[in-house]
Order: sequence, then structure tokens, then C-alpha cells
Amino acid sequence: MKKMKAAVLNKPLDIEVKEINIPEPKENEVLIKVQCIGVCGSDVHYYEHGKIGRYVVEEQLILGHELAGDIVKAGSQVENLAAGDRVAVEPGVVCGTCEYCKSGRYNLCPEVQFMATPPVDGAWSEYVTIRSDFAFKIPDQMSYEEGALIEPLSVGIHAMQRGKVHPNDKMLITGLGPIGLLAIKAAKIFGVNEIYCSDVVPYRRELAKKFGATKVFDPTQDNIHEEIEKATAGSGLDIAVETSGNGRAVQDALTITKRGGRIVLVGLPASSEIPVDITHIVDSEYDIHGVFRYANSYPTAIQAIGSQDLGLEDVITHKYRLDNIKEAVETAVNQKDTSIKIMIYP
Amino acid sequence: MKKMKAAVLNKPLDIEVKEINIPEPKENEVLIKVQCIGVCGSDVHYYEHGKIGRYVVEEQLILGHELAGDIVKAGSQVENLAAGDRVAVEPGVVCGTCEYCKSGRYNLCPEVQFMATPPVDGAWSEYVTIRSDFAFKIPDQMSYEEGALIEPLSVGIHAMQRGKVHPNDKMLITGLGPIGLLAIKAAKIFGVNEIYCSDVVPYRRELAKKFGATKVFDPTQDNIHEEIEKATAGSGLDIAVETSGNGRAVQDALTITKRGGRIVLVGLPASSEIPVDITHIVDSEYDIHGVFRYANSYPTAIQAIGSQDLGLEDVITHKYRLDNIKEAVETAVNQKDTSIKIMIYP
Amino acid sequence: MKKMKAAVLNKPLDIEVKEINIPEPKENEVLIKVQCIGVCGSDVHYYEHGKIGRYVVEEQLILGHELAGDIVKAGSQVENLAAGDRVAVEPGVVCGTCEYCKSGRYNLCPEVQFMATPPVDGAWSEYVTIRSDFAFKIPDQMSYEEGALIEPLSVGIHAMQRGKVHPNDKMLITGLGPIGLLAIKAAKIFGVNEIYCSDVVPYRRELAKKFGATKVFDPTQDNIHEEIEKATAGSGLDIAVETSGNGRAVQDALTITKRGGRIVLVGLPASSEIPVDITHIVDSEYDIHGVFRYANSYPTAIQAIGSQDLGLEDVITHKYRLDNIKEAVETAVNQKDTSIKIMIYP
Amino acid sequence: MKKMKAAVLNKPLDIEVKEINIPEPKENEVLIKVQCIGVCGSDVHYYEHGKIGRYVVEEQLILGHELAGDIVKAGSQVENLAAGDRVAVEPGVVCGTCEYCKSGRYNLCPEVQFMATPPVDGAWSEYVTIRSDFAFKIPDQMSYEEGALIEPLSVGIHAMQRGKVHPNDKMLITGLGPIGLLAIKAAKIFGVNEIYCSDVVPYRRELAKKFGATKVFDPTQDNIHEEIEKATAGSGLDIAVETSGNGRAVQDALTITKRGGRIVLVGLPASSEIPVDITHIVDSEYDIHGVFRYANSYPTAIQAIGSQDLGLEDVITHKYRLDNIKEAVETAVNQKDTSIKIMIYP
Repeated sequence: MKKMKAAVLNKPLDIEVKEINIPEPKENEVLIKVQCIGVCGSDVHYYEHGKIGRYVVEEQLILGHELAGDIVKAGSQVENLAAGDRVAVEPGVVCGTCEYCKSGRYNLCPEVQFMATPPVDGAWSEYVTIRSDFAFKIPDQMSYEEGALIEPLSVGIHAMQRGKVHPNDKMLITGLGPIGLLAIKAAKIFGVNEIYCSDVVPYRRELAKKFGATKVFDPTQDNIHEEIEKATAGSGLDIAVETSGNGRAVQDALTITKRGGRIVLVGLPASSEIPVDITHIVDSEYDIHGVFRYANSYPTAIQAIGSQDLGLEDVITHKYRLDNIKEAVETAVNQKDTSIKIMIYP
Repeated sequence: MKKMKAAVLNKPLDIEVKEINIPEPKENEVLIKVQCIGVCGSDVHYYEHGKIGRYVVEEQLILGHELAGDIVKAGSQVENLAAGDRVAVEPGVVCGTCEYCKSGRYNLCPEVQFMATPPVDGAWSEYVTIRSDFAFKIPDQMSYEEGALIEPLSVGIHAMQRGKVHPNDKMLITGLGPIGLLAIKAAKIFGVNEIYCSDVVPYRRELAKKFGATKVFDPTQDNIHEEIEKATAGSGLDIAVETSGNGRAVQDALTITKRGGRIVLVGLPASSEIPVDITHIVDSEYDIHGVFRYANSYPTAIQAIGSQDLGLEDVITHKYRLDNIKEAVETAVNQKDTSIKIMIYP
Repeated sequence: MKKMKAAVLNKPLDIEVKEINIPEPKENEVLIKVQCIGVCGSDVHYYEHGKIGRYVVEEQLILGHELAGDIVKAGSQVENLAAGDRVAVEPGVVCGTCEYCKSGRYNLCPEVQFMATPPVDGAWSEYVTIRSDFAFKIPDQMSYEEGALIEPLSVGIHAMQRGKVHPNDKMLITGLGPIGLLAIKAAKIFGVNEIYCSDVVPYRRELAKKFGATKVFDPTQDNIHEEIEKATAGSGLDIAVETSGNGRAVQDALTITKRGGRIVLVGLPASSEIPVDITHIVDSEYDIHGVFRYANSYPTAIQAIGSQDLGLEDVITHKYRLDNIKEAVETAVNQKDTSIKIMIYP
Repeated sequence: MKKMKAAVLNKPLDIEVKEINIPEPKENEVLIKVQCIGVCGSDVHYYEHGKIGRYVVEEQLILGHELAGDIVKAGSQVENLAAGDRVAVEPGVVCGTCEYCKSGRYNLCPEVQFMATPPVDGAWSEYVTIRSDFAFKIPDQMSYEEGALIEPLSVGIHAMQRGKVHPNDKMLITGLGPIGLLAIKAAKIFGVNEIYCSDVVPYRRELAKKFGATKVFDPTQDNIHEEIEKATAGSGLDIAVETSGNGRAVQDALTITKRGGRIVLVGLPASSEIPVDITHIVDSEYDIHGVFRYANSYPTAIQAIGSQDLGLEDVITHKYRLDNIKEAVETAVNQKDTSIKIMIYP
């Protein structure tokens, strides 16, 4: 059996590149040569802490779930794809038979096998298999980097869908990590023109402006409520998309939109409970929508990236070979403010 | 000018029946002889405390906004109604020209003139005027009491609409005051069959059972999460409707529905902020909807009450003549647990 | 291998009961002892004409797809069901991986294996297998007949969902075959109170009244537009549900609702094209929704039937043993007006 | 009383510029100096035929309803606007009190006073009054021509909203008159990238390409079904927007989208009835939406035009002074293929 390199997390802070067997695709799967794969905040969190909420790394685990590559082999029943196809991978395979899957909310499937979520291995490796309906062909002009970025972009697309975004919406995005920055692009895909952003890190605010933010705020310096009031000439915000998980940002998001406004919650707070002004939510008749991963977002992303230059790759701040995975992850750990998206090349 | 009796709140705890002028309907208004009018929690709150949030009673005010009666005079431009018609009154007149009115969310109109919300007088009086599009003809077989109860029932109807309720929903209603009890009826109007309820007061739980609750819980005794799990054979709740404003009930509502569930927030908490588990909302991909009053609910209520015996009047626990208004309000103040809905007859 | 009886359609008008092998459930399937199974219009059409549109009976075919029964064996991977469970069967197994399945519209899955649609066998037989997620446990108090009727009732439920029905809707149902009659029940499940019906057959109109129709019309005698105008006191219809496929009824449905109304098209016309007043559709800003089978309807049906006495069985006009299948089908062919639903008992 | 010039239609084909009184704004109205106003197909139709459907020109009528200008006087109750403001005018004033207005579908208000629809005068004149909530401030950088084009663009915006358009939609627009061409822009405002168009006139197809159409078809030469199949690599169309009113185009639109597709009908056919394949609509589970004018579209249009260069003015093919109104209208009558939008300057 042929071997490949893979980055294996033995235990927190202990990651190494090993030789393991190349997996064999089942009849409805494809085998993919990974060309480019991102480092996600969750990967870094597993590396540092060995768990995220109810998910605990108990055995060796391969991390990584933001990838694009080439199909090298297709299972016998695969019809939509063939060896040689360039693909982006949606990394959560679902059951297709539960009530969530059957009603179009497959991201809530309790049987999901999501890459790099213990005990399911991810794809920081030379090869990976996936059920063929979760590999999406990408056009020739799309780079592998763009293909890999579809995964975090999808969170933004799903946020826009959950928030029933309209091109006339005035939007605030709080938090400008990779998810927040790519949410700017997602908003633009949905035709939104007026996008305000906030983050404490100057470098991120600069990037947001480059990404098309109408105006950026520093929550430690600016009175965001007043600034928004001014910037919208008193008409107010329609929607807030919270991606930071910061308690104060959550509170801002849940109070800043105008009456009848919408709030989309994406970021996961570290603290277990955040004090919320329920009366304001009731009196304002808000709609608040949680966002968990994404569903049916890849075709939208692929068409959008293929139709216009979204400049997605501007989120990539560092690139590493798979052999240097430890250095890559340590960069993510130690340069939280200035490393936005790190790409790995197996 | 002819005179009528009206209950005037001079200042907190000081209410008296006075003789005042009968109002003259404008060309697009109708003059209504009030036959039956309820005491709402907000009336009681103004009576006790003189204010609710940003609304402060600064001058003499007539309270009361849940009413039905007979039209005695119609303005010159009124076409849909005539003297002799029996009507239920929707007590908030809106501008019809702002962005909220034009998009169907007129309950958020900033120019609304809502009865018994300072400085707008209500209808604890013999006569009242209202713009004719806010008076709704009720059928002969409908009682004035039912007509008056459409107002609090409307909050439940609006909650069901905001919560996109489906007949297959398994629902929890927290809080069994008039709004919570009538929300049971609203749920039934929308075809919901499986309705769980919770309240600390035994009398209210008994009423809920009479109103059609599938099962009732005492939050001080029962582990509601476990009870719901058991009652639904593990399938879980689809939607929670919170009407109590109690902090613990809000927290229950925001954690108890299954993934992908919906929470409708109706009750206004006394405390300014309630600790909320944001991570659970995000991870569960909840939809949370505030409810402020109602819009376009009267025709639904009238058709439903006219088509079936909803037993609405079972919420009425006390009846008083307008002359005894002080006794009526004091009953509401002193018997919070056992007085559900008090009706006034001018 | 054990044998069972099955009604096999050899060619049009040639059906006979044969002994064939009892099927073996796959690991994710259950084997069901069929207790009760209906005769659908499509079964009768295949029997008479050997085809429906693009579906042609080219080999021997077992018809029948409206069934309930008992599980006698469960495949090794089946967790939700066990031998002894009473179940209703949703007769179309879908792929779970295409864009329709993933977005919640699995009824449009191009890979669907739908019972009794050539070349897929149905269940006019003693036993049948189905993937376990398409067998739904029914409560003890529900009869097998009710279980079998969930299939045609589901078309009505789906029609209500597609038509975004609201309890305040004034509805017209055109056509009172089994689908139209059960659509009355579906409308009631969704809280609709005001249901007008039309059909040319007096017996069916009588049944509709028994089923809860507010008023019934004879399209050959009554001016339905005028009658509706009168019955609704000029307020007009909100929604029309067309189940007959009759050209005139389609035209009625597409012109009779008020401006902003909705029309749900369920019936399949025999004629290829029907002249339609497009200007009226545009000017009225109608919403028109086609209905193809159903999706996610079984839980709604089971909960509704389990919660109230819907009187579904009143649609059953004839009952036959499987051995008398030819007589059963001939009754359906020859007594189109008075045979509503015929049940087969294997 | 001051006088102004206005183009008055005395009877079909008889239009002349007369001196009439400048109207006086009511307390909630503004008086506008018209700077630029378009010629709409309906204006031309009234000019040629004296009627459109149920609307008949029975007395002298001023036509024109696509306008922008400057406020010269504001009524005493007007707060949102003042003399000197540049505005675009939404030309249909509604009642604000009927069920349509109250539910957000004010375009269906039966009491609407729509400019240039008999017997309501339009604005081919130097001045016009409108209720202040129907005059929308436009930014300094927006031209009067763009302001006037918001009216026809609004039909496209409303079509996109009615069709629940998604950025990933593959869209066909049939008919490339001003409405069809501006619908391309509306689609782009909503983030749509893949827009196919068809029209019989080569000049219009050229313009469509300039406007951003992905590909254009000639329905007299191309097999549009095949071309779409090819262009979308077999994945098919999601939505068709029919703006021509041509019978064949309506039939194309109602058969060409994939299963589960949407069709938006905007064009008004000349012929009273068009043969439609109802079975295909049912079997494909289509959603079909009529579009009548627009509602709540002006803010969207103004924000979009203000945020990006949409190139709207490319639809303007001719410009005339108000004094030359007859020449302008005759151009519209005689050059149907090459005159797209004619602008009048009072």
C-alpha cells in the first residue's frame, strides 16, 4: 500500500509529519491530491487546547478542513467527477436521511462526519478521500487557494442567507478575523454596498477597507452607535453580523440595529454567558439568527469567484509547506493579530 | 357638548371617574360606545408606577385599550362602517407613510398613537373615537367580551406569525398570564396540537389545561428539560414562546428547543440584562424573534372566533362597572395570581 | 426462499395475483407485512393505459403505493425501527445527495425510486421492503387505513405548505376526488376555517360537506365567481387549490382569487395546453405554485391524525382482499364518480 | 395664479403643450420642478389607443410618470424634505389603510392614485405635486436622468424581490425593451452573475450585452432551450423573468427553467389568453409570480445607483424638450425597435 505524508496531532502542542497509508476511496468517494489547505482557528484551538466544547481529541488526529486539490481516483459509482478534475472540498459528510438533511438544513445533521473534528481526521496530508457529492469542480481560472478559501467564505455566505440579506441593507460586521473579512466578500456577493466593520486590531481594519468596507471602527476608541448613526444619516443599521465572539461585540450587535433589524451570530464566545438586554430585543422586534457552519453554499461561492475578481487571496498572510506544519501552527498561535489566513502546501 | 364618564388617572394610585366631553369623530373616524374593555398589565403598571420604560405619565391619562362596542357615529368619509355596527378596536393608529408601515410592519411605526400609552388617552370611558380602519366589524354571535379579548389574543397571533409556526410544531409556552393563556388559543388557531406550558402559579396551570395545554409544568418543581424530553419521546421542542419576562424562563426558552429551533420572546423582563448562553444559540442555529404588539391580526382573530368555540372568555375572572374602576385595578394589583383578565363595563 | 402473493400487472387491463419471492431487506431497509393499501388514480391509469406521461409500463409491474403495515424484519443498520412496529410508508426513496435533496426539496430528486412508477414495483403484495427512513411509526390508536391514507393526505399537506396557507385564508378547492377531499382535511390541519369546494359530481360534493367544506358548488350550475363574492361578502378568496386537472377548473382557479392571491396547482390536465389569461395573473400579482407529490409531510400527518379525529376514513368507499384485485381496479375504472378511495387488504 | 406648460392629451394622437395653473401642494405634499421625465410604453399606448385594459382616457389627460426634479415648495406638515432638495418621484400615491397597504403590498392598493393612469394626471409638465413620502431625495452625484430611470428600474427590482432571486441564480430575461434591459441592472444589483437574454431585435440584444448580459439569444433563430442547456453545462436555469408580453416568450419562460424553478411574469400580453402547459408546471413544481408595478423599491435603487456606476443612462436613446412632445411620442410610436428610452426636459 502506498504511503503519504500527513501532519498528525499526537497531543496538544505535539504535531509531527508522519508517513501513513494513502486512503482508498469507497465506491461513492473520490481520492484527492491536496494542493492547498488552510489553517482554521479551530485547528489552532485543537492544537493548543486539545478540545473545543464537547469535542475532545482523545487519539491521534489529522487536522485541516479548508482544501482544494486534484482528483486522482474516483470510486466505481462516482459519475459527476473524474481523475484530473480540480475540486474544492466541503468537509462535512452528512447522512442524507435525518429530518435536518431532509429539510435542507444538513449542517445540523447529528451524524455529520466533519473533517478535523475528533474523532474524524482532516486533510493536512498529501491525499484525502471524500464522498463525491462533497467535492465541487472548480473552473480552470480559479486558483487552489481560492478553492480552499471557499470553506471559510461559506460561513459568510450562510450568514447572509440566514440573515435574509437584501442589497439595500446597511450592515455592520463585528470582528475581522478570516471569517469576518470573508463575510465582507460574502456581503458583496449578495449585493450589499454599505458595510461597516469593527475590530480592535488596526491591521485587520486596514484589510477590511481593502476588502471593501465602507467604514471601519475601533470599538476601543469609537462610539460605534454614534458613528453608525452619523454614517447612515440617522436611518440606522438593518443587520449586524457578529463574528468575533467577544462579549462586548455581541452586546453591541444585539443593540445596534434599528427596530425590526436582524442580528446574525457567528462568533463563539469564550465566556459561557453574556448579559443581554432582552427588553430591547422584544421592543425592537429583532430577528436573531445563529449560524452553524453552512449548507448549500459551495455552488454560490464557486459561481461568484468565477464571475468576478473578489480578491479573496488577500486574506492569505502566510504560506508553509506541509513539512513545516509546526511552524505554521505556531505562527497562528503567536501572531493572532497579523496572521489572518495561513496556507499549507502538501 | 354632551358629556360622558371616563376613568382618569390623575397620578399613580389616584384614579377617579370624571365627566368629560364626548369626543367628536373626525371625517375618517368613528365614535364608539364602549361596551366592554379589559384591564391590561400595562394599565396596572401605569396605575402603580406611572411609567413603563420610556413612557411616562406626565398629565392626566385615561387608561384601557382592549375594547369592543357599538358604532354610534361615523365620520363623513367613512365607508366601511356605519352606526349600529358592533366592532372590536385595534388600539394603535399608525401613520401609513413610514418605511415600517409601507413594508407591512406597522406595529413598529414611530408615529403610532397607541391608546393608554402616554400621552395618548385610552378607552376606560363610555365613548371613544378611532380611525375607521382600526375598527373591525364583529359578527352577531360574537360577544363584546370576545371582541375585547382580540387585543391580547393578537399578541399571541403575532407571536405565531413571527415564529413561523407549523401545525407539526411541538411548542412550549412559558408564563401563563393572559398573554400566555391566550397564546395557547393562538397556537390552536394555527393548528398546533402539542403545547407544553409552564408557570409557577397552580391556578394558571389549571387554566392552561382547560385551555388545551398538552401538559403543564411547574418550573420550581419540574426539570422542564427532562420533562420535555420525556413528553416528546426524545424528539424535542420546535419552538418556545416566552411570555413571562422572568429571567429564568427566558434562559429556559433560549436553551430548550432542539437544534434549528425557534424562540419567540414576548415577555418584558424587569431586570435590565439577563445572562444568555450565546454559544448554545450559535451552535444550535436558533432563530429568535422579538414580538412587539401585533400587525394585521384582527381579521385572523375574528374569523377564528367566528368559526369555532375557542372558549376565550374563560380568561375572564372578574367583571366591574366603570364606576368601580378603582376596585377593578386594585384587584389586579392585589390578586396577581388569580385575577387573569378583568373586564370593565362602562 | 419464502413466497408471497402479489398483484402483477402483465400489460394494460391484465392484472393477476401471483406467487413471488418475499424480498429480503438490505441493511438499511425494513421488511413490512402490508396490512392495508389504497388504489390511487395513477394505479388505475397504468392499469387502463399502461403509461402516464413519460412513465411507460414496459415489463411486469406491481402497482400500489399507499400503505401501512407491520415491520417483520429490520436490516442490520436500522436503528429507528424494529420488528413489531406499526408503520406508514412514504413510497419514494431518494438519493440524499443531489441539489434537490440537499436543499429540502427531495420530492424533485431525479434519482427517486417511487413505488408503482415504472420500472419500480409497488406494494399490492403481502410484503414489501423500504429504506428505514421512509417508514414512519404510527401510534397504536391509529388504524392501518389512516396510515395508508397519509400518502394521499400528504399531497394536500404539501399543497398547503407550498401555498403558504394561513388560518385566515379563504380557500377554494376545485375537484373533489380523493386528493381534493383530503385537501379539505389538510386545510383544517393548517387551521383554515373557510373552505369552498367545487365538483361536478353530487356525491362528492356531499362528501365534501361531511368533510367540513363551508359551502360546495357545482361548476356546471353555479357561477362560482359570483357565489364566492357573495359567500365572502365581497372580500374575495385568498387561495385556490386546483386538484381536478379539468381545464375549466384550472381557468377558474387562475382567475378567481383576489389580487395578491395564491393558486396551487395539483391536478394534471389531460389536454396538453390550457388557455390562460396571463394579463390577469400579472395584473393581480398572483403567486402560482405547482405541487409534485410531497416532502417532509408524514410527521405532520401522523401528529395531526394522532391528536384529533380527522375522520379520514370517510373517503374509503370500497374494500377488497388482494385476491380480488381485478374487481377492485375495475370498480375504480367503472365507478369513477362514486368510488372515492378503494382499500386492498393483502 | 402662476402658469406652467404641460403636455395635454386631448384625445388619441392629439397631444399639445398648453398653459395651465401650477398646482398648489397640500400640507403633506411637495411641489416639484420637473427636470427630466421619461416616455413609458404606457404613455405611448394611451397616446395611440386612448386606453389600456380597464383604464380609458375619457377627458384631457397629462401623461408621464418617470421623473426627477427639484423641490420648490413643501407643504406645512412636510418634515423629510425641503425646497432645494433633488428628488426622484414614485408616482403612485396609496391609501395607507387598506389590507394591501397594511401588509406591505401597497402596489395592490385599490385606492392608488397613479400618475398618467386615467383619470389621474401625470407629469409631462413643468411642475407637479406629490405626497411627500413618495418623493425620495437623491444624492448630488446622481443625475436627474438616473433619478427618472428609477421608476422603470423599480419594476425590475420588484421582479427580483418577487422571484426571491439569489446570487447563484442562472437567469433568463425574455424581452429587451426598457423594462427588460433595466431588469438586467436590477439582477446585477441583487448579485446575479449569469444572465441570459432574448429579444428579436438585434439592436436590443447588443444593448443587453453592453448592459452585462452573459449571452443573448434571438428567439427567431436560436433554440433557446438547447442554448441554455449548453451555456449552463446542463445544470439548467433557476429563474426566468418575462418582460415582453409576447405569447411565445411567455411559453418559453413557463417551460425553460429547471424543476423547482421560478418564473416571474412582468410583460402584459396583447392576446387575451395564451396556451400554457399546466402539466409541466405541476410536474416541475414551479413557482410563478406576477409583477404589478413595485413597492418599497426606491431606497434600494437609490442606494445601488449611488454606490456604483450602473450605467443606467445607456438606455436613453433620445432626448426632447417638452415643447417637442409630439415629436417625442411619435418617435416612440415609429421607432419601436431602436428607441429604448426617450427623455423629456420641461
